[in-house]
Amino acid sequence: MDWAVILAGGSGLRFWPLSSPTRPKQLLPLAGARSSAEDTLDRLAGFIPAARTLIVAGAGLAALLSERLGIDPANLLIEPRAASTGPALLWASWEIRRRDPAAAILAMHADWVVGDSAAFVSTAASALEAARAHDRLVTVGIVPSRPETGYGYIVPGEPLDRGARSVLRFAEKPDAGTALDLMAEGALWNSGLFAWTADRLLAEINAHTPELARELPRLEAGDVDGFFAAVPATSIDVALLERSERVAVVPGHFDWDDLGTWEALARVRPRDRQGNIAVGQVVLHDASDCIVWSDRLPIVVSGVEDIVVVEANGRILVMARSQAAELKRVLETLPAAIRDLPV
Amino acid sequence: MDWAVILAGGSGLRFWPLSSPTRPKQLLPLAGARSSAEDTLDRLAGFIPAARTLIVAGAGLAALLSERLGIDPANLLIEPRAASTGPALLWASWEIRRRDPAAAILAMHADWVVGDSAAFVSTAASALEAARAHDRLVTVGIVPSRPETGYGYIVPGEPLDRGARSVLRFAEKPDAGTALDLMAEGALWNSGLFAWTADRLLAEINAHTPELARELPRLEAGDVDGFFAAVPATSIDVALLERSERVAVVPGHFDWDDLGTWEALARVRPRDRQGNIAVGQVVLHDASDCIVWSDRLPIVVSGVEDIVVVEANGRILVMARSQAAELKRVLETLPAAIRDLPV
Repeated sequence: MDWAVILAGGSGLRFWPLSSPTRPKQLLPLAGARSSAEDTLDRLAGFIPAARTLIVAGAGLAALLSERLGIDPANLLIEPRAASTGPALLWASWEIRRRDPAAAILAMHADWVVGDSAAFVSTAASALEAARAHDRLVTVGIVPSRPETGYGYIVPGEPLDRGARSVLRFAEKPDAGTALDLMAEGALWNSGLFAWTADRLLAEINAHTPELARELPRLEAGDVDGFFAAVPATSIDVALLERSERVAVVPGHFDWDDLGTWEALARVRPRDRQGNIAVGQVVLHDASDCIVWSDRLPIVVSGVEDIVVVEANGRILVMARSQAAELKRVLETLPAAIRDLPV
Repeated sequence: MDWAVILAGGSGLRFWPLSSPTRPKQLLPLAGARSSAEDTLDRLAGFIPAARTLIVAGAGLAALLSERLGIDPANLLIEPRAASTGPALLWASWEIRRRDPAAAILAMHADWVVGDSAAFVSTAASALEAARAHDRLVTVGIVPSRPETGYGYIVPGEPLDRGARSVLRFAEKPDAGTALDLMAEGALWNSGLFAWTADRLLAEINAHTPELARELPRLEAGDVDGFFAAVPATSIDVALLERSERVAVVPGHFDWDDLGTWEALARVRPRDRQGNIAVGQVVLHDASDCIVWSDRLPIVVSGVEDIVVVEANGRILVMARSQAAELKRVLETLPAAIRDLPV
């Protein structure tokens, strides 16, 4: 059977002061009236049933997801600590294999904005099919719409059948020039949308990732805390996909955004004629290319361009758009009394 | 005896959203820990006693002044409507003459920031002395520190004795080039600090300002409401000083600012090395030449320059510094629900 894993962790800092560890971006109505977590579940519905969808999240967030999204607690995998995607996906794959030894698994994140749900679903189905047919770890590579420096890239190799290709190499987040070269080369964004059979995932982990594989007995013994205490924090890309030779890529022809920074709103929200995005009680006067988010207090913006203004959770952020990717660094400089939001 | 009149009216819009009609700038700690109204009273103390100081303000503000500044209600002149400085100073001068027919009067505004109180007091004393000695309407002209286009100018004429000079002409708010010419010509800022005897003021009004003089019987009859309903709104400069030939000017060698816009804070508040002014819970990160005022909520400012950010009274303003003088125009475009502040 086909199963789904949704990774719903996250530090909650990228959309500060709107987001917080207990209200991370995937639960916020950033791209529209609904949150990306809700959209993610809706997108899966009718394709993989909720009974076969597991969600991985930290404890605080898991409670919230369970309550807000009506998720069966049996399908919530509560991470004792955030350890990146490697341990989370290994645990989820192991758990699914325990429930269904013949399972194929579609893995995704809860914080994506996807432009075309039908295209997403048909690509996901192709990826699952390719994962079974080729017995490989299949990545979905998004056809790039811009030379984004914030994403990793996948360079496809020779064609396999069923629309899949082998993977020539993975490229880490590039600089701007390299990103252009990668686009010209036909490289695809490494979205984090993966498909594999539970068997193949475990086999490849056992073959290539001793630092995770050697802690599997802890999972067998039901000691999830011990497993997470013992494993290093590592991404599935670094821990496995870049090491295995049994990987493949299926191209995804749909708009896809992981809303990495406030700047991302400019890609997913409608702009006015002056290029502004305004959410909430906002009055713009001779402003252009601004992103303004009012949660509670009216905001008046006059005579400025290319800035981000956010009021939420009793904090105000005013930032150059060009600095949006540096927000985490700025937050590190803040006194905790300002950075830490009221729960 | 010497008397003082302090004009404390004002629309309360210039420092929106911090200021409001019931909390105008003269009651706010804009330049330092104390308000300019408090500073104005302190500056007078020991020079002209509170018993001989009248304050002119609207009803709401008068109650506030009386309570906050401990002013004797008998010395509060409550304007039925704001009608600029002409009617207010005529009424106050008339009232003082009623109490003390031989009075000389020093008139000022409550919203000034003065750099050197001792220089202010000695200049004011000279102005009062000149007003009596020459029997003229004496203006204090501030020696300009910049070619300000927001002030009117006084061009001095031939010297009289006691440091006074006659007035060649008044110049309205100039454009930038004219302001430079005026400075080169030795013109002084028309501060609104005036001295005259009550007798001379009344005589000159009767001689030159029929539109005000003809309503004086209403004051005689105790009908202040009728007086204000009948007179036009007009400044004392236009209504009288530009018409009378019995005017003189005494130069004032002290820093003087009427805090006309948020931009003015840059002249009266200390700046950090990057030229920023920050009041309240503000964190600046790679920001320069910004003016940031936090009344209640922490504000984080990153990667921007030359902007004004204000949080107060449940509103947020983000404005280019170059637009500060246009704030009233911006406010006119706002929905009343946003513009009008909670009382």
